Amino acid sequence: MTEKVLSAADANFEKSLARLFDFLRIPSISTDATFAHECEKAAQWVATELTALGFHAEVRKTPGRPMVVAHYTPKATARKVPHVLFYGHYDVQPVDPVDLWNTPPFEPTRKKDADGVERMYGRGTADDKGQLMTFVEAARAWVDATGGLPIKATFLIEGEEESGSPSLIPFLKANKAELSCDAAFVCDTNMWDAMTPAITTRLRGLVHEEITVTGPRIDLHSGMYGGAAMNPIRVLTKVLAALHDKNGKVAIPGFYDGVGPISTATRKQWNSLKFSEKKFMSEVGLATPAGEKGKSVLEQIWARPTAEVNGIWGGYTGAGTKTVLPSKAHAKLTFRLVGKQNPEKILKAFQKFAKGLIPKDCKLEFSGHGGGAPASEISEDNLFIRKSAAALKAEFKREPVLLGSGGSIPIVRNFKDILGMDSVLVGFGLHDDAIHSPNEKYNLSSYKRGIRSWVRIMGALAE
Amino acid sequence: MTEKVLSAADANFEKSLARLFDFLRIPSISTDATFAHECEKAAQWVATELTALGFHAEVRKTPGRPMVVAHYTPKATARKVPHVLFYGHYDVQPVDPVDLWNTPPFEPTRKKDADGVERMYGRGTADDKGQLMTFVEAARAWVDATGGLPIKATFLIEGEEESGSPSLIPFLKANKAELSCDAAFVCDTNMWDAMTPAITTRLRGLVHEEITVTGPRIDLHSGMYGGAAMNPIRVLTKVLAALHDKNGKVAIPGFYDGVGPISTATRKQWNSLKFSEKKFMSEVGLATPAGEKGKSVLEQIWARPTAEVNGIWGGYTGAGTKTVLPSKAHAKLTFRLVGKQNPEKILKAFQKFAKGLIPKDCKLEFSGHGGGAPASEISEDNLFIRKSAAALKAEFKREPVLLGSGGSIPIVRNFKDILGMDSVLVGFGLHDDAIHSPNEKYNLSSYKRGIRSWVRIMGALAE
Repeated sequence: MTEKVLSAADANFEKSLARLFDFLRIPSISTDATFAHECEKAAQWVATELTALGFHAEVRKTPGRPMVVAHYTPKATARKVPHVLFYGHYDVQPVDPVDLWNTPPFEPTRKKDADGVERMYGRGTADDKGQLMTFVEAARAWVDATGGLPIKATFLIEGEEESGSPSLIPFLKANKAELSCDAAFVCDTNMWDAMTPAITTRLRGLVHEEITVTGPRIDLHSGMYGGAAMNPIRVLTKVLAALHDKNGKVAIPGFYDGVGPISTATRKQWNSLKFSEKKFMSEVGLATPAGEKGKSVLEQIWARPTAEVNGIWGGYTGAGTKTVLPSKAHAKLTFRLVGKQNPEKILKAFQKFAKGLIPKDCKLEFSGHGGGAPASEISEDNLFIRKSAAALKAEFKREPVLLGSGGSIPIVRNFKDILGMDSVLVGFGLHDDAIHSPNEKYNLSSYKRGIRSWVRIMGALAE
Repeated sequence: MTEKVLSAADANFEKSLARLFDFLRIPSISTDATFAHECEKAAQWVATELTALGFHAEVRKTPGRPMVVAHYTPKATARKVPHVLFYGHYDVQPVDPVDLWNTPPFEPTRKKDADGVERMYGRGTADDKGQLMTFVEAARAWVDATGGLPIKATFLIEGEEESGSPSLIPFLKANKAELSCDAAFVCDTNMWDAMTPAITTRLRGLVHEEITVTGPRIDLHSGMYGGAAMNPIRVLTKVLAALHDKNGKVAIPGFYDGVGPISTATRKQWNSLKFSEKKFMSEVGLATPAGEKGKSVLEQIWARPTAEVNGIWGGYTGAGTKTVLPSKAHAKLTFRLVGKQNPEKILKAFQKFAKGLIPKDCKLEFSGHGGGAPASEISEDNLFIRKSAAALKAEFKREPVLLGSGGSIPIVRNFKDILGMDSVLVGFGLHDDAIHSPNEKYNLSSYKRGIRSWVRIMGALAE
């Protein structure tokens, strides 16, 4: 049965690609309200596709960007089939700095590169439109080849993943009965490499903050006031420069509460991956790991927390010069969390730390939206993980590696806490996909083998 | 004779104001090439006005924004009259953040404020269109009342003052014979207060720098790389936070070379000004002077150097959040100089200091344009200063105060070094004019008494 479905997927691959390109052309940036209408268009596009496959699909309103919820119930069979949820997100990151893109971000471009590898370039190719379309197209292959899916499925496609998912928790709570399944499948992670599939079982948590320092009440002339008036950029840089000590450790008191060492077994498994730190660093133009001294790079990105400044601005940033002593300076930060670190406590600790570093004269404001998600770890002997691992091995002829991820997928935590289900993280991205950067790409092989893998996983779940 | 001219100036004041408003409507921002054409329009506007007064006026090309040079030779008189140069600039600062303006920056607005004082609001009202028009309108009053100016005059109106005057030195050198006069009058400074005129005899120097730190070669996902990849914002904030020690002193080695203490006489004069530090600071929403501990505010802004960050930017600065670990971070700096501090040496010292603070992995680039100007001091017993002081006293019924300025007017240095002439700095701005800020303003009394003061000074010079 599964072989027939795989043939159908292969035969329709060019059409699958064309559909994805249509989807990629919608600039569904969630973090900027200017693009709210485009997000609605993208949600509607997904719902329409799923309806055509026999799903009962709806675009559901939220206070922010809409959710797509689609249910599929197979024809009655003798055996009881599992009910699983597939999760992805139709929203994408902003595209600035847009002048660094080689091709327009919302005109997806297929290209055979100098290394002979075929890739598609565009915002959302890898994060996450290309990935979520692998299970949509796998469902299509099942419908085409057999008349229907072999399992009971719920697709949940959200539109706020890139902006902190403010509507997600209320939505899951409000629709708890409808969305609670036996397990969730999330397609938003990477393979180990182009030849080796992976299941991610360990995820860092995440919490955002935004800080504004106000010095003088108005922008001043730096000649007339320079020396006497406190410059808020000077204050802000003092706060941010104090975040890390000289050994790369975060210097906020209490920051490491709840952070434990990794187990000997985990350390052994990670060492066996033969991960090249040198290659990982040099691919992005660096040589020296910036994290805590004495920790391996994999440990730094999978098992240690961070305090990162994602953006900073203040004063005159245009062309030429302006001798201004500005009134305000700003920064956006994120903290990646591991172990039992608590997002709220981390924010409080940071705020206290920052307050301690500013002069009495200056005003400090925090405009992060709170919330955030702690880290997640998923048991590796979970039945759904074992079935998926077997299916991936059949497709790739290699054992999938069970790994950590430095990125945060708070949904995993929410699915467990609110809906009581575990998540299986299977994705087909590669670490050079440049997600969140100019020239984001997705290999055509990622898309093709992604679709084939889901065909196999869906088949395996029904057995 | 002078009384008749003053009456003509008063009678024509409303027309003088209307002409200034026409001039203010031209958005002649020099620092942004988008406005190059507007700068040309402003230069032409000035030349046309001066031609109508009997000047031989020309708009002269430079590699940047044009210069206006206009000469006036009076009818032959028995006595030898001095030849003086009047300097101002038609270019203005950028207007961002534009949403903080109460009225559009290039639609000058006349308003009687709640305190009963009449002011005009708009970019360039005080810096420097309103100021340079005081001597243009004084010249007009002389022409209207007596048929001509009583002195030989050269007007030099430049268009790059707000962008570091890159074309000025070559222009002065190339036109040395034409522009060398007995003295220069510069109208780009403040009064002591609305009732008390001032002549500025001490000016800080200025040098610009721009610094870019590059970490990873591309923007990265802060989850995938956070902890391992060095964030250039972290590096930049370490450099900038190290600029000042905890006593407000600049920590760059060698920075204070050539900075001497102020003389006892100067200190005594400044103390006699009864300057309220508390009022000066509280007007801009501050209480604690940010400069070197133990120095008065006047000393901090008139006689001590600064290292100021005028702008900083890097990573994502738009709405919402973006979990990026950026490739680059930037800052614009200015150093205000005093005594014998050498601009080139200061830049070199800063560059060495910054290089010493960045990790081997990161790249550091400097894109300041070099140059800069050292500080200037002008002898207070200069004949032109004495004549101007007497004229100002006649107009205001108060002795003008001889003061320092924290701002930099490099032209003063250039006039001395290249053209061999001293400069007399007489201006009618007030320290709350919000130059370089939103809602820049100029009091109507500044404009009116400015015109009247120049009428008197021109008269005094001819005697």
